[in-house]
Amino acid sequence: MSEDPETAAVREANLGFYRAFASLELAEMQQVWERSDAVCCVHPGWPLLEGWDAVMQSWEAIFTNTAMMQFAITGARITVAGDWAWVVCTETITSVVQGRVLESKVQATNIFRKHAGRWLMVYHHGSPIV
Amino acid sequence: MSEDPETAAVREANLGFYRAFASLELAEMQQVWERSDAVCCVHPGWPLLEGWDAVMQSWEAIFTNTAMMQFAITGARITVAGDWAWVVCTETITSVVQGRVLESKVQATNIFRKHAGRWLMVYHHGSPIV
Repeated sequence: MSEDPETAAVREANLGFYRAFASLELAEMQQVWERSDAVCCVHPGWPLLEGWDAVMQSWEAIFTNTAMMQFAITGARITVAGDWAWVVCTETITSVVQGRVLESKVQATNIFRKHAGRWLMVYHHGSPIV
Repeated sequence: MSEDPETAAVREANLGFYRAFASLELAEMQQVWERSDAVCCVHPGWPLLEGWDAVMQSWEAIFTNTAMMQFAITGARITVAGDWAWVVCTETITSVVQGRVLESKVQATNIFRKHAGRWLMVYHHGSPIV
């Protein structure tokens, strides 16, 4: 039942992304992404955001408008290909936005790249499950 | 302005997927996917579909309910990592579903794997742009 160390490291990086998300702290989110203009992000219902500045501005806007957010991550499928890895998982989200409690499900694709032994996010694509 | 041959091959595989999609023929779609239970697919608003049978049944259902579908693909960003590649692109779709003409935009993540020199789709994630 034990998984190989690289897959385990990617699984942990994926959970680290959701811890940063739940922290609602931009500084935490900045730690888990590759600091480059190659990064991209698609939030549920949003168009593609390209580059570090656009991606981080989107997190700042989301965090500013959110009072609380909790994640349960299920069904993670992890593929490692050299210094790249991609994760498919389902987010069950409980959040408080503008005083209202919301429950939602998001299907996510997360891509990571390994730098000096550390897996950093280069791409997040979240889409609403209707 | 010429791109390296591998990136060009992935770009062509990505366009091949959309030609198969626009054909509305299941046999065409089967040609562009890896025939395995490792394949997964997320249609806009849908949960994750896992494995060849579930993915192909979804295409069959979509094709059955669609009279016409045309794609314009823009902004393709292609990353090649050995025998894996991923593409981020925007689909502008014109379709006829149950007699109505619909225009929509979808943000897509497509992942391909190279088998005997041929790039086959292993993952498609499309999400609605609101």
